Amino acid sequence: MLDLIRSLAVTNTSKIVLVSLDGLGGLPRPETGRSELETARLPNLSALATSAACGLVRHVAPGITPGSGPGHLGLFGYDPLVYQVGRGVLEALGIEFDLRAGDLAARGNFCTIDGGGLITDRRAGRIPTEVCVRLTERLRTIRLPGVEVMVEPVKEHRFVLVLRGSGLAGRLSETDPQALGKAPLPVRALDPAAGRAAALINAFVDEARRRLADAAPANMVLLRGFDQLPDLPRFPDVYALRAAAIAAYPMYRGLAKLVGMDVLKTGGTFADELTTLREHWQAYDFFFVHYKDTDKAGEDGDFDAKVAALERFDAFLPAIREVGPDVLAVTGDHATPSVLAAHGWQPVPALVWSRYCGADPVTAFTERACAAGSLGVLPAHHLMPVVMANALRLTKFGA
Amino acid sequence: MLDLIRSLAVTNTSKIVLVSLDGLGGLPRPETGRSELETARLPNLSALATSAACGLVRHVAPGITPGSGPGHLGLFGYDPLVYQVGRGVLEALGIEFDLRAGDLAARGNFCTIDGGGLITDRRAGRIPTEVCVRLTERLRTIRLPGVEVMVEPVKEHRFVLVLRGSGLAGRLSETDPQALGKAPLPVRALDPAAGRAAALINAFVDEARRRLADAAPANMVLLRGFDQLPDLPRFPDVYALRAAAIAAYPMYRGLAKLVGMDVLKTGGTFADELTTLREHWQAYDFFFVHYKDTDKAGEDGDFDAKVAALERFDAFLPAIREVGPDVLAVTGDHATPSVLAAHGWQPVPALVWSRYCGADPVTAFTERACAAGSLGVLPAHHLMPVVMANALRLTKFGA
Repeated sequence: MLDLIRSLAVTNTSKIVLVSLDGLGGLPRPETGRSELETARLPNLSALATSAACGLVRHVAPGITPGSGPGHLGLFGYDPLVYQVGRGVLEALGIEFDLRAGDLAARGNFCTIDGGGLITDRRAGRIPTEVCVRLTERLRTIRLPGVEVMVEPVKEHRFVLVLRGSGLAGRLSETDPQALGKAPLPVRALDPAAGRAAALINAFVDEARRRLADAAPANMVLLRGFDQLPDLPRFPDVYALRAAAIAAYPMYRGLAKLVGMDVLKTGGTFADELTTLREHWQAYDFFFVHYKDTDKAGEDGDFDAKVAALERFDAFLPAIREVGPDVLAVTGDHATPSVLAAHGWQPVPALVWSRYCGADPVTAFTERACAAGSLGVLPAHHLMPVVMANALRLTKFGA
Repeated sequence: MLDLIRSLAVTNTSKIVLVSLDGLGGLPRPETGRSELETARLPNLSALATSAACGLVRHVAPGITPGSGPGHLGLFGYDPLVYQVGRGVLEALGIEFDLRAGDLAARGNFCTIDGGGLITDRRAGRIPTEVCVRLTERLRTIRLPGVEVMVEPVKEHRFVLVLRGSGLAGRLSETDPQALGKAPLPVRALDPAAGRAAALINAFVDEARRRLADAAPANMVLLRGFDQLPDLPRFPDVYALRAAAIAAYPMYRGLAKLVGMDVLKTGGTFADELTTLREHWQAYDFFFVHYKDTDKAGEDGDFDAKVAALERFDAFLPAIREVGPDVLAVTGDHATPSVLAAHGWQPVPALVWSRYCGADPVTAFTERACAAGSLGVLPAHHLMPVVMANALRLTKFGA
């Protein structure tokens, strides 16, 4: 599909803005029967939906709940089942670690083991982040033959381990037995190429055990999601777009960088992001703009906060339109229904507005209303071609 | 896809009921412009649809009319184009024959040949089933070297032939020339592994011709759909569900058994099936419940009988809900429009109800109304992941 798009992409002077409202989709609150989007007052989104092509996007497959990685890869036009990115890589992107081609990254947990070496807490009682920072300092001085060892704290009990050097390819099993009362597992090479990496990781774990022996409850590590940077087709090449990402949170900057977008320096608020958008308007054809508050409220299970986050975004919408995009797409990377207090599998409202988007009966940007839209229920990775078409940036397929 | 589901499936205490209304979908009666579902009074289904996620499921591909085998495999989550089951196997399942791995099964017809050996009736005038039973007794005493020969009557001119023994693998051509005035064809091996099976089948046919010489109009056999039990991923393993099937008809019990569900003993009515459901409620996580009457009426071309069958099901629905499923899915294995008096290719209404199913604008369980639902038009094999998600039995894909 990306090869097809690449073969059809042409350039012009149009400007595209793709806004991802993180965790946009919701579910009705049982007391009212109305979702967050149906509860919020969203006059600007409603007006935009009325003049846009609307639909629902599904990021991975029906019933599958996307993580932020697959969710955004889908929005960027990459089928997340084809382009899989390991959790170690995503965790490194999430702290904006400068991961390089060939680096081997893993998610780490500090955990607690008893005198017999058996796990009693897979998260070491969720130690404070400050403790995590101190303990990673003990680990990052571990020396392994022929590779550089990097250990970076994330949050609470979580850290990232990165080995840098040659010959680290291959698939590895995890050390986390995913159960209490068992010992951490040695890493096994899942294909012949992974032999060297497996030996190095096992050496790291042995030394980590020694260095953490007196650090209970965080007296051991568990490692999962070993992976290297995937070799993804570059977004600017596939779409022939000068593409920029504006996101206050590191994970989303990392995902945009992964596909080759320029990541613009921006402040911590959405107002800062819009300032950045205006400042770089001339230099790019395509802007990915990320809004985080919706997801945060949903993850907290705070229905009212999510409603408020939506209303705050709605108030920003005129400012985005004033910048003058030829194509404006608004959607999300996954649902985060407040009643689930977690990511959800539900398809997410999407709209594509342009001079050429066509009319449909949808007059509100809600889950229910968008179900009747002209985009239908669309795999998320098919949205970018629709966006490109609306920018008149795709030529005809076949004569 | 099944590998993905398997990797994401988790267990909890939720209960799932999947009801298949056989041949559910219909077409408008020309006089009224309303389909069977639109004509029937279905207060309980309408109420359920109002609070459920609705859509249309398509079992194989647009325009393709599914048989009961592919139709149900789709509902169980198996792409019927990937997991194909031969007609010989389906015919054996349909009479609840205890088919074992390695058995070679074929559909048989008694047919009529003239003095020159040319076919004059491919169905032997649809002989009564009693005649079929007597003639299969002549055939089942045929002896072939190194294999057991089993011949079982089905209905009218139809029977099942099963060879049991080793080395029966491989693909075989059919003996039915699908035309009158031609002689039955010898079986050919379509790959080298099938040589032994081809020789045995041809020997069986030669002997059958001798034993039936005086039995006109049923004086010869035609054999089709040679196949062995497919090695399907087991439903309980893929979904991590203790799964039970409740079906009064042998074909559906056979299909459920094929994917590894426990087939519960039940009576001949839907009321019996619901009693079985209640009795086994604690022992299983997932129940496949089959309702046959809708298909039977559709096959008979009896619009009013299909309406009545739908209304009878509607009256049972409160009893199903009272058992207390956390997820209730209602759909069908294919359409059987009364105006076709046969299976149809039309997509079939589907609903998934749970605490987390979300809202859509659909307030009636009809072909027309469900087209606007939030499930969209869904390949049938994607329904089970949605059902699993609603049971909170699938973890997130990617971080």
